[in-house]
Amino acid sequence: MANAKLRVIPLGGCGEIGKNMTVIEMGNDAIIVDTGIMFPANDMHGVDYIIPDFQYLIDRKDLKIHGVLYTHGHEDHIGAVAHVLEAFPDVPLYATRLTASLIEVKFANARRFNEARVSHDPIVNIIYAGTNFELGPFKIEPFRMTHSIPDCLGFAINTPYGLIVHTGDYKFDNNPVDGKKPDYAKLAEFGQRGVKLLLADSTNADRPGWTESESTIEPAFEKVFATAKGRIMIATFASLMSRVQQAAHVAKKYGRRIAIAGHTMREYVNIAREIGYLDIDESLLIDIGKINSVEPQKLVIMVTGSQGEPAAVLGKLASGRHRYLDIRKDDTILLSSHPIPGNEEMVYRTINRLIQRGANVVYDSLEKVHVSGHASREEMRLLLNLVRPQYMVPVHGEIRHLVEHKKLAAESGVPENNILIAENGTIIEVDRHYVRKTERLPGGYVFVDGSGVGDIGRAVIRDREILARDGFLIVSVLLDKKTGKLIEEPSIVSRGFIYLREADELLSQVKYTVESTLSANISANGHRGDLIEESVGKLLYNETRRRPMVFSIVNTI
Amino acid sequence: MANAKLRVIPLGGCGEIGKNMTVIEMGNDAIIVDTGIMFPANDMHGVDYIIPDFQYLIDRKDLKIHGVLYTHGHEDHIGAVAHVLEAFPDVPLYATRLTASLIEVKFANARRFNEARVSHDPIVNIIYAGTNFELGPFKIEPFRMTHSIPDCLGFAINTPYGLIVHTGDYKFDNNPVDGKKPDYAKLAEFGQRGVKLLLADSTNADRPGWTESESTIEPAFEKVFATAKGRIMIATFASLMSRVQQAAHVAKKYGRRIAIAGHTMREYVNIAREIGYLDIDESLLIDIGKINSVEPQKLVIMVTGSQGEPAAVLGKLASGRHRYLDIRKDDTILLSSHPIPGNEEMVYRTINRLIQRGANVVYDSLEKVHVSGHASREEMRLLLNLVRPQYMVPVHGEIRHLVEHKKLAAESGVPENNILIAENGTIIEVDRHYVRKTERLPGGYVFVDGSGVGDIGRAVIRDREILARDGFLIVSVLLDKKTGKLIEEPSIVSRGFIYLREADELLSQVKYTVESTLSANISANGHRGDLIEESVGKLLYNETRRRPMVFSIVNTI
Repeated sequence: MANAKLRVIPLGGCGEIGKNMTVIEMGNDAIIVDTGIMFPANDMHGVDYIIPDFQYLIDRKDLKIHGVLYTHGHEDHIGAVAHVLEAFPDVPLYATRLTASLIEVKFANARRFNEARVSHDPIVNIIYAGTNFELGPFKIEPFRMTHSIPDCLGFAINTPYGLIVHTGDYKFDNNPVDGKKPDYAKLAEFGQRGVKLLLADSTNADRPGWTESESTIEPAFEKVFATAKGRIMIATFASLMSRVQQAAHVAKKYGRRIAIAGHTMREYVNIAREIGYLDIDESLLIDIGKINSVEPQKLVIMVTGSQGEPAAVLGKLASGRHRYLDIRKDDTILLSSHPIPGNEEMVYRTINRLIQRGANVVYDSLEKVHVSGHASREEMRLLLNLVRPQYMVPVHGEIRHLVEHKKLAAESGVPENNILIAENGTIIEVDRHYVRKTERLPGGYVFVDGSGVGDIGRAVIRDREILARDGFLIVSVLLDKKTGKLIEEPSIVSRGFIYLREADELLSQVKYTVESTLSANISANGHRGDLIEESVGKLLYNETRRRPMVFSIVNTI
Repeated sequence: MANAKLRVIPLGGCGEIGKNMTVIEMGNDAIIVDTGIMFPANDMHGVDYIIPDFQYLIDRKDLKIHGVLYTHGHEDHIGAVAHVLEAFPDVPLYATRLTASLIEVKFANARRFNEARVSHDPIVNIIYAGTNFELGPFKIEPFRMTHSIPDCLGFAINTPYGLIVHTGDYKFDNNPVDGKKPDYAKLAEFGQRGVKLLLADSTNADRPGWTESESTIEPAFEKVFATAKGRIMIATFASLMSRVQQAAHVAKKYGRRIAIAGHTMREYVNIAREIGYLDIDESLLIDIGKINSVEPQKLVIMVTGSQGEPAAVLGKLASGRHRYLDIRKDDTILLSSHPIPGNEEMVYRTINRLIQRGANVVYDSLEKVHVSGHASREEMRLLLNLVRPQYMVPVHGEIRHLVEHKKLAAESGVPENNILIAENGTIIEVDRHYVRKTERLPGGYVFVDGSGVGDIGRAVIRDREILARDGFLIVSVLLDKKTGKLIEEPSIVSRGFIYLREADELLSQVKYTVESTLSANISANGHRGDLIEESVGKLLYNETRRRPMVFSIVNTI
């Protein structure tokens, strides 16, 4: 056994590294930590979301996957569960109570919308911080961490070559909303025992100091509640249950009832209340359909769409497209969130539109209504000093964050050569005497667009990019087989290029160009299409300085 | 005269309000402040830039435009000069020495690339802070302000109905790089005299405190220079001459020579040196073509592309596409800039790629290598307390900023009803007894794409949006005129929808759908095309959950 290779492979998303899925294997035995999705960049046109490329696991027929361990219930850690179970229908999942519930919701929705072709529900085993268990050759020690969602875990994984510690997403919140503090003692104990390899969250590696506790938000909420004249709407992530709990606390204090707009958030709130993770008295809640029976100053509405998503509640309110909610004068809207990089433009546009509709909008640059869920630099130092790893792989973050985290770890005493920056797909080999990077798997991530998983790639995205920039123009011609001459005028279809109704002259020029190209190349036969495309493309560029895609369809008769 | 209407009209860009162009008219006499461009949002596909919609001025044949006053030389204040001069070829321009030079460069380039159809060079009159002059019925008092480019002005405009003060872009920099401080005395004097209306920069209205002086950057530069092992590249805006000056100071101190990569920046540096606005000794400069003759640790290269623009120097370096520069180990790249909202994703992607190529990248969350050019809240309060306006219109910012600026002005003692939030195109009427908003002009802004000005609008952008999301598919069929039957198999052209080479089955389904639609509607004649589009669209949605644009071309013979 101890001769088998121990390998750690961060898989997953674009941009961030080692975040969405990590494979740990020892010979033919493997476990997975998390199966999350990533959200597409602005220039990944039409992509709904991105899943890690786990083709490697599919190809390794010899590999026994003993289970998937979940650190917490955010989309970027659980979102690909249905895709993974489609490939490995019987792999058992291990998660805390709340995380398990969120996975079950996620999976049930995926099956309802035919995204998951698995005939049975997943096998989710509930695990607890402090209760160890074994998966194949690995002994797993889940330990309590804090983040912006309750019931988070980190994992210590005992292997024949030493202890691997995986932090998951974390910050050291000494005053968490649910009172459940990070398990410093356990981390220190791992340090005493000796940690071979630490995989640690790097998200805020460029942020000095210490991230504020979730509980600091409540006073900021109170400040807003104390002066709001009308309804209060609070926008946050659907899964951010501790934020909902805080809103409920303050609502109760200020004599306001609370309604939930947004299907997913309602679903999550119901489950969290059922399993005892949300303490909201029934009398405090009011059905979203009945809010008009309550005076505005007695009401809080929780809404989704804090990232500026046009299809979520806040986006619909901003553009006046919500079915039964609208913005009224004296509404106060509180964005308890921070734009994810790439979303700034949409978030600020949403805020501007809400203001135009008369709302008072409070967001995080005005009041401290949001804090980050990730550790800042001083917390990272604390982690390193507790765990004192022999080797370290910074994960969860863009390369720029990993590099900063590496510098910080080196300052904290990890030998610089023992800190490995490993991009997604890099196989990290752990041996008795070393930890080192070896080859990198091909692939990287898989685009999901509509019902297609991986059926569009870089080439299709590139075409979409060109179409987005300059549109297309298609010329269809019908030629006499014998003379090679046009039988009728060329037909033209074009979109996204120019406002056609005001482009008569240009269209005439296109037709003229097609005609003269054809008559100058009467015997060209096979490549008349290419010649047309070339000459029309040139014409369009000269006239407009744009380069739409140009196609021709040539029929001869 | 005093019966004529005095009107102030903020025109211009998307997103920001009253930033790019302001019209001030009294009866038939008008002046303009600034003629700038805006950069498109990420979802304004293919748009190169946006100019203010000044159709109103073109329609007002009775209006005599006495001149354009320029506050400073940034693109968002001068960039549309060629477009404005095309409509009003003989309008005189008024600008400080540096701003005038930048306008001349801008205009010359526009003429060279045939963007400006004006037969002569613009008439630029050099003006000076503190030297008053008259334009029609207006007496103009230019006063010194500070921003992130030297030679900035604000304008006090004397009108029969009182004094209008326009700040331009400003911060109160008490230690500017060129030593030329904001003219507090003048602002106080305006306050003494009585200011009817203040138009003031709102950009940072949600930023507490006081914006740092430009000179605070030099110590941060020094810190980087002190430890850099190899070459240093500094990325900033081409027009940010004070930053170039600071780089030159520090380069001299650390015995490094300085090269300029990027055509525009080189052009600006040459001009600024010529007219005495940049103090860089000839011996300090080295031609970018000769940098290999200098040891890496003796070299600084100024580069453009700090906003992640793929076509600028930094973007090319990040993707390894620069003609003669590349990234080497030990290169230090200093981004002296902050991402403009919407650019974050591209900026961070550029940083990550530069790190992947081996560079050490320093940006503003790591070291204070950039400061904002705009006043923060305490400076705004100072301005309000100096000027003590009777009325105020917050300008330069998104609505969310204007609203915060309004609150702040109210706190500072401007009567709340006297503070007007006026969106672009709103006509603000100034009378002896009031200042009020009246109607709003139609239009708003004009897209420039390639050589087309205003020839694409919302409809074309919407088409590009759809094409970007799901691409298109075109079916071309050739039918027998008598039987209505297909003469040959339908041809299909598609891009951006699906990876066609792996979609044989779907293509067969499309052909089959076309055939069965045609045979079920043998006598449909005129709308056979519509029927094909409908049935193929449905098929594609059912199979892929995507909605590409579907077109048909039907030829009968």
